[in-house]
Amino acid sequence: MAINVIGLDADDTLWESEAYFVDVQGRFRELLAAYDSGDDVQKHLFAVERRNLEFFGYGVKSFTLSMIETAIQLTGKQVSGDDVATIVGWGKEMMRHPVRLLDGVAEAVAALATEFRVLIITKGDLLHQEAKIAQSGLGELVEGVDVLTEKDASTYELLLRRRDIQPTTFLMAGNSVKSDVLPVLGLGSHGVHIPHGVTWEFENDHDGDPDVHGYHVVDSLADVAAVARSIV
Amino acid sequence: MAINVIGLDADDTLWESEAYFVDVQGRFRELLAAYDSGDDVQKHLFAVERRNLEFFGYGVKSFTLSMIETAIQLTGKQVSGDDVATIVGWGKEMMRHPVRLLDGVAEAVAALATEFRVLIITKGDLLHQEAKIAQSGLGELVEGVDVLTEKDASTYELLLRRRDIQPTTFLMAGNSVKSDVLPVLGLGSHGVHIPHGVTWEFENDHDGDPDVHGYHVVDSLADVAAVARSIV
Repeated sequence: MAINVIGLDADDTLWESEAYFVDVQGRFRELLAAYDSGDDVQKHLFAVERRNLEFFGYGVKSFTLSMIETAIQLTGKQVSGDDVATIVGWGKEMMRHPVRLLDGVAEAVAALATEFRVLIITKGDLLHQEAKIAQSGLGELVEGVDVLTEKDASTYELLLRRRDIQPTTFLMAGNSVKSDVLPVLGLGSHGVHIPHGVTWEFENDHDGDPDVHGYHVVDSLADVAAVARSIV
Repeated sequence: MAINVIGLDADDTLWESEAYFVDVQGRFRELLAAYDSGDDVQKHLFAVERRNLEFFGYGVKSFTLSMIETAIQLTGKQVSGDDVATIVGWGKEMMRHPVRLLDGVAEAVAALATEFRVLIITKGDLLHQEAKIAQSGLGELVEGVDVLTEKDASTYELLLRRRDIQPTTFLMAGNSVKSDVLPVLGLGSHGVHIPHGVTWEFENDHDGDPDVHGYHVVDSLADVAAVARSIV
Protein backbone atom coordinates (compact mmCIF):
# COMPACT_ATOMS: atom_id res chain seq x y z
CA MET A 1 0.00 0.00 0.00
CA ALA A 2 1.24 3.51 -0.78
CA ILE A 3 2.96 5.46 1.98
CA ASN A 4 0.82 8.18 3.47
CA VAL A 5 2.54 9.10 6.73
CA ILE A 6 6.27 9.50 7.42
CA GLY A 7 7.66 9.43 10.94
CA LEU A 8 11.03 11.09 11.52
CA ASP A 9 13.30 10.47 14.48
CA ALA A 10 14.85 13.65 15.89
CA ASP A 11 18.18 13.23 17.77
CA ASP A 12 20.95 12.45 15.25
CA THR A 13 18.40 12.27 12.42
CA LEU A 14 17.31 15.93 12.29
CA TRP A 15 20.01 17.45 14.50
CA GLU A 16 23.25 16.62 16.31
CA SER A 17 22.74 15.10 19.73
CA GLU A 18 25.14 12.27 20.50
CA ALA A 19 28.10 14.53 19.66
CA TYR A 20 27.29 16.61 22.75
CA PHE A 21 27.23 13.48 24.92
CA VAL A 22 30.54 12.33 23.45
CA ASP A 23 32.08 15.70 24.19
CA VAL A 24 30.95 15.62 27.83
CA GLN A 25 32.07 12.00 28.19
CA GLY A 26 35.56 13.14 27.16
CA ARG A 27 35.57 15.80 29.86
CA PHE A 28 34.23 13.27 32.34
CA ARG A 29 37.12 10.89 31.63
CA GLU A 30 39.59 13.74 32.15
CA LEU A 31 37.93 14.70 35.42
CA LEU A 32 38.18 11.15 36.73
CA ALA A 33 41.75 10.68 35.48
CA ALA A 34 42.86 12.87 38.40
CA TYR A 35 41.60 10.19 40.82
CA ASP A 36 43.57 7.36 39.28
CA SER A 37 40.21 5.62 38.93
CA GLY A 38 41.85 2.88 36.89
CA ASP A 39 38.78 1.19 35.51
CA ASP A 40 37.53 1.77 32.00
CA VAL A 41 35.46 4.91 32.68
CA GLN A 42 33.51 4.76 29.44
CA LYS A 43 32.54 1.13 29.91
CA HIS A 44 31.53 1.66 33.53
CA LEU A 45 29.48 4.75 32.69
CA PHE A 46 27.64 2.90 29.94
CA ALA A 47 26.83 0.03 32.32
CA VAL A 48 25.46 2.50 34.90
CA GLU A 49 23.45 4.33 32.20
CA ARG A 50 21.97 1.05 31.05
CA ARG A 51 20.98 0.03 34.58
CA ASN A 52 19.50 3.46 35.26
CA LEU A 53 17.31 3.46 32.14
CA GLU A 54 14.57 1.63 34.01
CA PHE A 55 14.63 4.20 36.83
CA PHE A 56 15.41 7.44 35.05
CA GLY A 57 14.70 6.78 31.35
CA TYR A 58 16.53 8.47 28.48
CA GLY A 59 17.92 11.97 28.25
CA VAL A 60 20.32 14.45 29.76
CA LYS A 61 19.08 14.40 33.36
CA SER A 62 19.32 10.64 33.48
CA PHE A 63 22.80 10.81 31.92
CA THR A 64 23.89 13.44 34.46
CA LEU A 65 22.74 11.29 37.38
CA SER A 66 24.56 8.31 35.83
CA MET A 67 27.80 10.31 35.57
CA ILE A 68 27.50 11.28 39.24
CA GLU A 69 26.92 7.66 40.25
CA THR A 70 29.84 6.48 38.12
CA ALA A 71 32.13 9.13 39.63
CA ILE A 72 31.22 7.99 43.15
CA GLN A 73 31.80 4.35 42.30
CA LEU A 74 35.07 4.74 40.38
CA THR A 75 36.67 7.03 42.98
CA GLY A 76 35.78 4.83 45.96
CA LYS A 77 33.43 7.65 47.04
CA GLN A 78 36.32 10.12 47.08
CA VAL A 79 34.95 12.36 44.31
CA SER A 80 34.96 15.98 45.51
CA GLY A 81 31.93 18.20 45.87
CA ASP A 82 33.58 20.53 43.41
CA ASP A 83 33.74 17.82 40.77
CA VAL A 84 30.15 16.74 41.38
CA ALA A 85 29.13 20.39 40.92
CA THR A 86 31.05 20.42 37.64
CA ILE A 87 29.11 17.38 36.45
CA VAL A 88 25.75 18.98 37.36
CA GLY A 89 26.91 22.06 35.42
CA TRP A 90 27.55 19.89 32.35
CA GLY A 91 23.97 18.66 32.63
CA LYS A 92 22.65 22.22 32.54
CA GLU A 93 24.92 23.05 29.63
CA MET A 94 23.67 20.03 27.66
CA MET A 95 20.03 20.97 28.26
CA ARG A 96 20.87 24.25 26.55
CA HIS A 97 23.17 23.19 23.73
CA PRO A 98 22.39 24.90 20.42
CA VAL A 99 20.27 22.92 17.97
CA ARG A 100 22.44 22.24 14.92
CA LEU A 101 20.35 20.84 12.09
CA LEU A 102 22.09 18.19 10.01
CA ASP A 103 22.88 19.14 6.40
CA GLY A 104 19.85 19.56 4.19
CA VAL A 105 17.34 18.71 6.92
CA ALA A 106 15.20 21.85 6.77
CA GLU A 107 14.77 21.49 3.01
CA ALA A 108 14.16 17.74 3.18
CA VAL A 109 11.48 18.06 5.89
CA ALA A 110 9.75 20.86 3.99
CA ALA A 111 9.77 18.77 0.79
CA LEU A 112 8.44 15.66 2.55
CA ALA A 113 5.63 17.71 4.09
CA THR A 114 4.35 18.76 0.65
CA GLU A 115 3.86 15.11 -0.30
CA PHE A 116 3.17 13.20 2.93
CA ARG A 117 1.79 13.67 6.44
CA VAL A 118 4.96 14.07 8.51
CA LEU A 119 5.36 13.38 12.24
CA ILE A 120 8.43 13.86 14.42
CA ILE A 121 8.66 10.85 16.71
CA THR A 122 11.34 11.00 19.36
CA LYS A 123 12.06 9.59 22.78
CA GLY A 124 13.61 10.97 25.94
CA ASP A 125 13.12 14.05 28.03
CA LEU A 126 9.90 15.90 27.20
CA LEU A 127 11.21 19.33 28.24
CA HIS A 128 14.43 18.98 26.27
CA GLN A 129 12.80 17.54 23.15
CA GLU A 130 10.15 20.26 23.09
CA ALA A 131 12.79 22.94 23.54
CA LYS A 132 14.87 21.53 20.68
CA ILE A 133 11.86 21.23 18.38
CA ALA A 134 10.90 24.83 19.15
CA GLN A 135 14.44 26.04 18.46
CA SER A 136 14.72 23.98 15.27
CA GLY A 137 11.77 25.69 13.61
CA LEU A 138 10.71 22.29 12.23
CA GLY A 139 7.60 22.02 14.39
CA GLU A 140 5.60 24.25 12.06
CA LEU A 141 6.48 22.16 9.01
CA VAL A 142 5.09 18.90 10.37
CA GLU A 143 1.66 17.66 11.35
CA GLY A 144 2.62 16.63 14.85
CA VAL A 145 5.28 15.75 17.38
CA ASP A 146 5.24 12.69 19.64
CA VAL A 147 7.70 12.30 22.48
CA LEU A 148 7.71 8.70 23.69
CA THR A 149 9.32 7.19 26.77
CA GLU A 150 10.38 4.18 24.72
CA LYS A 151 10.39 3.28 21.04
CA ASP A 152 9.27 -0.30 20.76
CA ALA A 153 6.59 -2.18 18.82
CA SER A 154 3.92 -1.49 21.43
CA THR A 155 4.53 2.26 21.70
CA TYR A 156 4.56 2.62 17.90
CA GLU A 157 1.38 0.55 17.67
CA LEU A 158 -0.36 2.76 20.23
CA LEU A 159 0.77 5.90 18.43
CA LEU A 160 -0.51 4.67 15.05
CA ARG A 161 -3.84 3.72 16.61
CA ARG A 162 -4.20 7.04 18.43
CA ARG A 163 -3.46 8.96 15.25
CA ASP A 164 -5.65 6.68 13.18
CA ILE A 165 -2.84 5.62 10.81
CA GLN A 166 -2.96 2.33 8.96
CA PRO A 167 0.38 0.63 9.68
CA THR A 168 1.01 -0.42 6.06
CA THR A 169 0.85 3.24 4.99
CA PHE A 170 3.44 4.31 7.59
CA LEU A 171 7.18 4.70 7.08
CA MET A 172 9.59 5.50 9.91
CA ALA A 173 13.07 6.93 9.24
CA GLY A 174 15.93 7.50 11.65
CA ASN A 175 19.52 6.85 12.62
CA SER A 176 18.78 3.98 15.00
CA VAL A 177 18.01 0.55 13.57
CA LYS A 178 17.06 -0.54 17.08
CA SER A 179 14.60 2.28 17.85
CA ASP A 180 13.50 3.68 14.49
CA VAL A 181 13.45 0.70 12.15
CA LEU A 182 13.09 -2.78 13.67
CA PRO A 183 10.10 -2.04 15.97
CA VAL A 184 7.86 -0.85 13.12
CA LEU A 185 8.60 -3.71 10.71
CA GLY A 186 6.59 -6.21 12.73
CA LEU A 187 3.56 -3.93 12.54
CA GLY A 188 3.59 -4.08 8.76
CA SER A 189 5.09 -0.59 8.49
CA HIS A 190 8.24 0.37 6.61
CA GLY A 191 11.61 1.39 7.99
CA VAL A 192 14.44 3.50 6.62
CA HIS A 193 17.82 3.64 8.30
CA ILE A 194 19.80 6.87 7.89
CA PRO A 195 23.16 6.10 9.52
CA HIS A 196 24.77 8.96 11.45
CA GLY A 197 28.49 9.23 12.15
CA VAL A 198 28.08 9.27 15.92
CA THR A 199 25.45 6.97 17.38
CA TRP A 200 24.96 6.05 21.03
CA GLU A 201 26.33 2.60 21.87
CA PHE A 202 22.91 1.60 23.22
CA GLU A 203 21.28 2.11 19.83
CA ASN A 204 23.87 -0.09 18.14
CA ASP A 205 22.90 -3.14 20.15
CA HIS A 206 20.70 -4.95 17.60
CA ASP A 207 20.89 -7.72 15.01
CA GLY A 208 19.23 -5.72 12.23
CA ASP A 209 20.22 -6.51 8.66
CA PRO A 210 18.55 -4.72 5.73
CA ASP A 211 18.47 -7.89 3.61
CA VAL A 212 17.23 -10.19 6.34
CA HIS A 213 14.71 -7.82 7.92
CA GLY A 214 13.66 -5.97 4.80
CA TYR A 215 14.34 -2.34 5.49
CA HIS A 216 15.97 0.45 3.49
CA VAL A 217 19.25 2.26 4.08
CA VAL A 218 19.86 5.72 2.66
CA ASP A 219 22.59 8.33 2.99
CA SER A 220 20.46 11.29 3.93
CA LEU A 221 16.98 12.48 4.79
CA ALA A 222 16.69 13.88 1.26
CA ASP A 223 16.56 10.27 -0.03
CA VAL A 224 13.57 9.23 2.08
CA ALA A 225 10.92 10.64 -0.29
CA ALA A 226 12.19 8.47 -3.16
CA VAL A 227 12.04 5.36 -0.98
CA ALA A 228 8.52 6.24 0.14
CA ARG A 229 7.38 6.76 -3.45
CA SER A 230 8.86 3.42 -4.48
CA ILE A 231 6.53 1.55 -2.11
CA VAL A 232 3.22 0.77 -3.76
CA MET B 1 -22.23 26.76 27.54
CA ALA B 2 -22.59 23.28 29.02
CA ILE B 3 -19.45 21.44 30.07
CA ASN B 4 -18.43 18.69 27.72
CA VAL B 5 -14.82 17.89 28.64
CA ILE B 6 -13.25 17.63 32.09
CA GLY B 7 -9.50 17.83 32.60
CA LEU B 8 -8.08 16.30 35.77
CA ASP B 9 -4.70 17.06 37.25
CA ALA B 10 -2.85 13.95 38.50
CA ASP B 11 -0.26 14.54 41.26
CA ASP B 12 -2.06 15.33 44.53
CA THR B 13 -5.41 15.35 42.74
CA LEU B 14 -5.69 11.67 41.79
CA TRP B 15 -2.87 10.28 43.92
CA GLU B 16 -0.36 11.26 46.61
CA SER B 17 2.79 12.84 45.27
CA GLU B 18 4.01 15.77 47.34
CA ALA B 19 4.00 13.59 50.47
CA TYR B 20 6.87 11.55 48.99
CA PHE B 21 8.85 14.74 48.32
CA VAL B 22 8.17 15.96 51.89
CA ASP B 23 9.38 12.65 53.29
CA VAL B 24 12.63 12.80 51.31
CA GLN B 25 13.13 16.46 52.22
CA GLY B 26 13.01 15.41 55.89
CA ARG B 27 15.70 12.81 55.31
CA PHE B 28 17.71 15.36 53.34
CA ARG B 29 17.64 17.81 56.28
CA GLU B 30 18.82 15.04 58.61
CA LEU B 31 21.63 14.12 56.24
CA LEU B 32 22.84 17.72 56.07
CA ALA B 33 22.47 18.26 59.83
CA ALA B 34 25.65 16.19 60.27
CA TYR B 35 27.59 18.89 58.39
CA ASP B 36 26.49 21.73 60.62
CA SER B 37 25.27 23.34 57.40
CA GLY B 38 23.60 26.09 59.40
CA ASP B 39 21.47 27.64 56.71
CA ASP B 40 17.79 26.95 56.34
CA VAL B 41 18.07 23.77 54.26
CA GLN B 42 14.44 23.77 53.15
CA LYS B 43 14.56 27.35 51.98
CA HIS B 44 17.85 26.91 50.16
CA LEU B 45 16.64 23.73 48.45
CA PHE B 46 13.48 25.45 47.26
CA ALA B 47 15.51 28.34 45.84
CA VAL B 48 17.76 25.90 43.96
CA GLU B 49 14.72 23.94 42.70
CA ARG B 50 13.15 27.13 41.44
CA ARG B 51 16.30 28.21 39.63
CA ASN B 52 16.72 24.76 38.12
CA LEU B 53 13.18 24.62 36.72
CA GLU B 54 14.29 26.40 33.57
CA PHE B 55 17.11 23.91 33.03
CA PHE B 56 15.67 20.65 34.28
CA GLY B 57 11.89 21.21 34.49
CA TYR B 58 9.58 19.49 36.97
CA GLY B 59 9.80 16.04 38.47
CA VAL B 60 11.93 13.66 40.50
CA LYS B 61 15.13 13.76 38.42
CA SER B 62 15.17 17.54 38.55
CA PHE B 63 14.50 17.44 42.31
CA THR B 64 17.31 14.91 42.82
CA LEU B 65 19.81 17.09 40.94
CA SER B 66 18.65 20.08 43.01
CA MET B 67 19.23 18.19 46.27
CA ILE B 68 22.75 17.30 45.12
CA GLU B 69 23.46 20.92 44.21
CA THR B 70 22.06 22.14 47.53
CA ALA B 71 24.14 19.61 49.46
CA ILE B 72 27.31 20.79 47.71
CA GLN B 73 26.52 24.45 48.39
CA LEU B 74 25.44 24.12 52.02
CA THR B 75 28.42 21.94 53.00
CA GLY B 76 31.01 24.18 51.36
CA LYS B 77 31.60 21.32 48.89
CA GLN B 78 32.41 18.94 51.77
CA VAL B 79 29.46 16.59 51.17
CA SER B 80 30.77 13.01 50.98
CA GLY B 81 30.45 10.71 47.99
CA ASP B 82 28.54 8.37 50.26
CA ASP B 83 25.92 11.01 50.97
CA VAL B 84 25.61 11.99 47.30
CA ALA B 85 25.06 8.30 46.53
CA THR B 86 22.32 8.24 49.18
CA ILE B 87 20.60 11.19 47.50
CA VAL B 88 20.74 9.50 44.07
CA GLY B 89 19.23 6.42 45.73
CA TRP B 90 16.33 8.51 47.03
CA GLY B 91 15.71 9.65 43.46
CA LYS B 92 15.43 6.06 42.30
CA GLU B 93 13.17 5.22 45.21
CA MET B 94 10.87 8.15 44.39
CA MET B 95 10.62 7.11 40.73
CA ARG B 96 9.27 3.82 42.03
CA HIS B 97 7.03 4.88 44.91
CA PRO B 98 3.70 3.07 44.99
CA VAL B 99 0.74 4.91 43.48
CA ARG B 100 -1.72 5.57 46.30
CA LEU B 101 -5.01 6.87 44.91
CA LEU B 102 -6.69 9.51 47.05
CA ASP B 103 -9.97 8.51 48.70
CA GLY B 104 -12.84 7.93 46.30
CA VAL B 105 -10.81 8.78 43.19
CA ALA B 106 -11.37 5.57 41.22
CA GLU B 107 -15.14 5.82 41.70
CA ALA B 108 -15.23 9.55 40.97
CA VAL B 109 -13.24 9.21 37.73
CA ALA B 110 -15.41 6.31 36.57
CA ALA B 111 -18.57 8.32 37.31
CA LEU B 112 -17.26 11.44 35.51
CA ALA B 113 -16.38 9.34 32.47
CA THR B 114 -20.00 8.16 32.07
CA GLU B 115 -21.14 11.76 31.72
CA PHE B 116 -18.23 13.73 30.24
CA ARG B 117 -15.15 13.31 28.08
CA VAL B 118 -12.36 13.05 30.68
CA LEU B 119 -8.67 13.85 30.14
CA ILE B 120 -5.82 13.50 32.62
CA ILE B 121 -3.63 16.58 32.20
CA THR B 122 -0.42 16.58 34.18
CA LYS B 123 3.05 18.08 34.03
CA GLY B 124 6.52 16.85 34.80
CA ASP B 125 8.52 13.81 33.93
CA LEU B 126 7.01 11.83 31.04
CA LEU B 127 8.43 8.48 32.14
CA HIS B 128 7.28 8.88 35.73
CA GLN B 129 3.83 10.19 34.86
CA GLU B 130 3.21 7.39 32.36
CA ALA B 131 4.36 4.81 34.89
CA LYS B 132 2.03 6.22 37.55
CA ILE B 133 -0.93 6.36 35.18
CA ALA B 134 -0.29 2.75 34.14
CA GLN B 135 -0.07 1.64 37.77
CA SER B 136 -3.17 3.63 38.76
CA GLY B 137 -5.43 1.78 36.35
CA LEU B 138 -7.12 5.10 35.57
CA GLY B 139 -5.78 5.34 32.02
CA GLU B 140 -8.46 2.99 30.70
CA LEU B 141 -11.27 5.03 32.24
CA VAL B 142 -10.39 8.27 30.47
CA GLU B 143 -10.29 9.44 26.89
CA GLY B 144 -6.70 10.58 26.95
CA VAL B 145 -3.64 11.59 28.90
CA ASP B 146 -1.55 14.70 28.24
CA VAL B 147 1.78 15.24 29.93
CA LEU B 148 2.85 18.87 29.56
CA THR B 149 6.18 20.49 30.36
CA GLU B 150 4.35 23.50 31.81
CA LYS B 151 0.76 24.31 32.67
CA ASP B 152 0.10 27.85 31.56
CA ALA B 153 -2.46 29.59 29.37
CA SER B 154 -0.55 28.87 26.16
CA THR B 155 -0.04 25.15 26.80
CA TYR B 156 -3.72 24.71 27.74
CA GLU B 157 -4.75 26.66 24.66
CA LEU B 158 -2.62 24.46 22.41
CA LEU B 159 -4.01 21.32 24.03
CA LEU B 160 -7.62 22.42 23.55
CA ARG B 161 -6.95 23.32 19.93
CA ARG B 162 -5.16 20.04 19.24
CA ARG B 163 -8.00 18.06 20.76
CA ASP B 164 -10.61 20.22 19.06
CA ILE B 165 -12.26 21.30 22.33
CA GLN B 166 -14.20 24.54 22.56
CA PRO B 167 -12.73 26.38 25.62
CA THR B 168 -16.14 27.34 27.06
CA THR B 169 -17.10 23.66 27.26
CA PHE B 170 -13.92 22.73 29.17
CA LEU B 171 -13.50 22.46 32.94
CA MET B 172 -10.15 21.79 34.62
CA ALA B 173 -9.93 20.44 38.18
CA GLY B 174 -6.90 20.03 40.41
CA ASN B 175 -5.13 20.84 43.64
CA SER B 176 -3.08 23.73 42.28
CA VAL B 177 -4.76 27.11 41.79
CA LYS B 178 -1.61 28.24 39.99
CA SER B 179 -1.35 25.36 37.50
CA ASP B 180 -4.84 23.86 37.26
CA VAL B 181 -7.22 26.79 37.71
CA LEU B 182 -5.93 30.28 36.90
CA PRO B 183 -4.38 29.51 33.47
CA VAL B 184 -7.66 28.17 32.01
CA LEU B 185 -9.92 30.99 33.22
CA GLY B 186 -8.50 33.48 30.74
CA LEU B 187 -9.34 31.09 27.90
CA GLY B 188 -13.01 31.14 28.85
CA SER B 189 -12.81 27.70 30.44
CA HIS B 190 -13.85 26.80 33.97
CA GLY B 191 -11.67 25.92 36.94
CA VAL B 192 -12.27 23.86 40.07
CA HIS B 193 -9.81 23.88 42.93
CA ILE B 194 -9.64 20.70 45.03
CA PRO B 195 -7.28 21.61 47.91
CA HIS B 196 -4.94 18.87 49.08
CA GLY B 197 -3.37 18.70 52.52
CA VAL B 198 0.19 18.74 51.21
CA THR B 199 0.91 21.00 48.26
CA TRP B 200 4.30 22.01 46.88
CA GLU B 201 5.35 25.51 47.93
CA PHE B 202 5.82 26.42 44.26
CA GLU B 203 2.14 25.79 43.51
CA ASN B 204 1.05 28.04 46.36
CA ASP B 205 2.69 31.08 44.85
CA HIS B 206 -0.36 32.78 43.29
CA ASP B 207 -2.91 35.48 44.01
CA GLY B 208 -5.93 33.35 43.14
CA ASP B 209 -9.20 34.12 44.92
CA PRO B 210 -12.39 32.20 44.05
CA ASP B 211 -14.56 35.31 44.40
CA VAL B 212 -12.29 37.64 42.47
CA HIS B 213 -11.29 35.23 39.71
CA GLY B 214 -14.50 33.27 39.48
CA TYR B 215 -13.55 29.66 40.09
CA HIS B 216 -15.01 26.90 42.21
CA VAL B 217 -13.60 25.21 45.30
CA VAL B 218 -14.73 21.73 46.33
CA ASP B 219 -13.68 19.21 48.96
CA SER B 220 -13.19 16.22 46.75
CA LEU B 221 -13.15 14.93 43.19
CA ALA B 222 -16.61 13.45 43.80
CA ASP B 223 -17.99 17.01 43.89
CA VAL B 224 -16.70 18.01 40.45
CA ALA B 225 -19.58 16.47 38.49
CA ALA B 226 -22.14 18.60 40.36
CA VAL B 227 -20.16 21.76 39.60
CA ALA B 228 -19.87 20.80 35.94
CA ARG B 229 -23.61 20.15 35.71
CA SER B 230 -24.37 23.52 37.31
CA ILE B 231 -22.67 25.36 34.43
CA VAL B 232 -25.08 26.01 31.59
